[in-house]
Amino acid sequence: MSYRAPRGTQDVLGEEVKKWQEVEKLAREICERYHISELRTPIFEHTEVFARGNDASDMVNKEMYTFMDRGERSLTLKPEGTAGLVRAFVEHKLYANPSSVQRFFYFSPNFRYERPQKGRMRIFHQFGVEFFGEANPYLDLESIMVGLNLLDEIGVHKYKLVINTLGDAESQAAYKVALKEHFKPHLDTLCSDCQRRYEQNPLRMLDCKVDHDHEAMKTAPINLDYLNEESQTYFETLKKTLDEQNIPYEVDPRMVRGLDYYTHTVYEVISTDENAAAQSTIFAGGRYSHMVEYFGGPQTDAVGFAVGIERLLIYAELAGVKFDTGEHVDVFAMPMGQESNMQLFKLITELRKAGFCADMDYENKSMKAQFKMVDRTNAKIAMISGGNELEQGVVNLKNIETQEQVTVSYEDVVGQVRKWLGK
Amino acid sequence: MSYRAPRGTQDVLGEEVKKWQEVEKLAREICERYHISELRTPIFEHTEVFARGNDASDMVNKEMYTFMDRGERSLTLKPEGTAGLVRAFVEHKLYANPSSVQRFFYFSPNFRYERPQKGRMRIFHQFGVEFFGEANPYLDLESIMVGLNLLDEIGVHKYKLVINTLGDAESQAAYKVALKEHFKPHLDTLCSDCQRRYEQNPLRMLDCKVDHDHEAMKTAPINLDYLNEESQTYFETLKKTLDEQNIPYEVDPRMVRGLDYYTHTVYEVISTDENAAAQSTIFAGGRYSHMVEYFGGPQTDAVGFAVGIERLLIYAELAGVKFDTGEHVDVFAMPMGQESNMQLFKLITELRKAGFCADMDYENKSMKAQFKMVDRTNAKIAMISGGNELEQGVVNLKNIETQEQVTVSYEDVVGQVRKWLGK
Repeated sequence: MSYRAPRGTQDVLGEEVKKWQEVEKLAREICERYHISELRTPIFEHTEVFARGNDASDMVNKEMYTFMDRGERSLTLKPEGTAGLVRAFVEHKLYANPSSVQRFFYFSPNFRYERPQKGRMRIFHQFGVEFFGEANPYLDLESIMVGLNLLDEIGVHKYKLVINTLGDAESQAAYKVALKEHFKPHLDTLCSDCQRRYEQNPLRMLDCKVDHDHEAMKTAPINLDYLNEESQTYFETLKKTLDEQNIPYEVDPRMVRGLDYYTHTVYEVISTDENAAAQSTIFAGGRYSHMVEYFGGPQTDAVGFAVGIERLLIYAELAGVKFDTGEHVDVFAMPMGQESNMQLFKLITELRKAGFCADMDYENKSMKAQFKMVDRTNAKIAMISGGNELEQGVVNLKNIETQEQVTVSYEDVVGQVRKWLGK
Repeated sequence: MSYRAPRGTQDVLGEEVKKWQEVEKLAREICERYHISELRTPIFEHTEVFARGNDASDMVNKEMYTFMDRGERSLTLKPEGTAGLVRAFVEHKLYANPSSVQRFFYFSPNFRYERPQKGRMRIFHQFGVEFFGEANPYLDLESIMVGLNLLDEIGVHKYKLVINTLGDAESQAAYKVALKEHFKPHLDTLCSDCQRRYEQNPLRMLDCKVDHDHEAMKTAPINLDYLNEESQTYFETLKKTLDEQNIPYEVDPRMVRGLDYYTHTVYEVISTDENAAAQSTIFAGGRYSHMVEYFGGPQTDAVGFAVGIERLLIYAELAGVKFDTGEHVDVFAMPMGQESNMQLFKLITELRKAGFCADMDYENKSMKAQFKMVDRTNAKIAMISGGNELEQGVVNLKNIETQEQVTVSYEDVVGQVRKWLGK
């Protein structure tokens, strides 16, 4: 028996949950300004949605939470946000929408069975965007800017943007041929994953953590040399739009990203905080052209990124961001003797209706204990009623900051609180 | 292969997701006023958290999504919100908090494998609250008021509050003895579920849908007759506090609720909308005293309720509630010719930074097509730039409502938009 949260999962509460709320609020506000709509998909999907053969990453195969439901259908808890959203895009025929560009965002728990470590949980949470419409570098740029805006507004400023292009399908095919030629003589000295990737998708060999320092990796051909003209033009235009908007970036021709579905642009935003681990990716994304088709829709270009909330909060902590995590009670009611409970409850109900945060002691504690509660809840006003007040139909209000104290009739309580707190 | 959302699940998007956002926003605001903090627990828990032997409902055993993870641990997708939250309450030792009352809320998907029907999904979403602290009718009342406030603020007004008490453990034991005595002679004419419940928990026989009209059900003893003095007093005080706050209610001594863990107060808020199905529960909750102990904490009294978002939206629709589901773009930028793309993108970026929702056409459509987009996005201002404007370093702004049109320099765009829209 274990009554703890499962390994690799966590409860979010107290001061921590206020940070999450703040990040989510900022992300929602930014999405509103960029005209991005929310799209929610189920926590689980049919496994086929994620296990798309070659068109998926190693992660997806090894680390998914896959189970049979009671009707013997294989379901999988979503390991990432894009596939489910694209499935929904096709299911609801959103490609038939006359708007040329459609922008969506999501917040979602994702699930990967892997060894838990700092910033890597089995249930982790992502905010992401996906923009559908014609392949246009301005949309790539917009998606990047949403992420950068979020970092800036949270207060994470130490990062760099790294971009690359994988080119279109033709360019990728040419590059894969070159990679296979290059790696062929070294194959027996490479790891077993790389040997598999050599057959399935040699691009992903460049991502290998095991063979990262292998001599053959360092001398591998550069994909930029295999781009056809269209792909070159697309990448040049993207760089120009970044320059136009004065957004600094680096090009890393070795960056291929973990997922196979990208075409053209891929990007990562990497922490440059001296306290972050080396090559520490804050968020990452890219353009993809074939997933809508895979799910049965017409060819549709798309671009998106995802960022982990847990990771964002780690970088916010490194940056020394101070979130507002305190308690904020406007009025704390202190009944002196049980007779005043009813009256004070009525008054806090009125205050709540008027939009104030109000709380009270229900346990008829001592005055001293109640003032401690006022303190602990950071209450701005104490509302006190005992036998005398009750007889006269009044309460005492004490402004904690100014120490001002007034006695008011019941009907004047909301007005007096509004006067002091200016809401 | 199936590229549709799994049966009993749904995507939430378009106008629908705006309703969800609105309901969630209202619920969060109400929680803020009641000094209720958010507590998030993982989507899955160790199965033991939900399969608590007798201290659970039939639902929990038959309808859970239970599976083994890759480490051969049995996990279950949460079927309801209370157990995980109480597990977290104990794991984080929140019972040691010196605040006498601790209030929590949650939003969470819940999972039950059952036959899907209107308002009953396999993945459904609940908002709920749980208050911990001494057993005090004011807390019962507060929990009820949170739910009623939410209904009122959404605009669902046709409902009635029905309350009952199950009494404390002693009263429940006495009542169970009476029930068993009463049902014993009828046992072989009752359904198999009832025969099992007779042994496990005869209280739940009163909930039976199969034997609802059985003669023995109608003549069954009434639990109010078996309450000990303490339980009677508690219930009387609750009724008095409801009266004090002028909240109308009915007492239904047959109401036992689906879950076994309740003691003292149980309540349901039932729709009285003439278009709702009969006995249509909007939300339900009650008091429980032993769950914190079950998870390894000290005896702690608690009260809470949960409400399904999908259900709330059904009752909102019955009530004819109009949510704001439209699009609200402040400025839509119309480039006339590709040369103005860059300049307009810069300007919409500035507008977004200033807090406005801005969008633009990236496909260099015709002016007519672009004005259609202005229309469709409900944009308040069209920002137009072609060759002439570009040469002069200006843009045209058109106020769609007033039809007023002005030509302004780039640096005056944000100011002019602010002037028109007053943000």
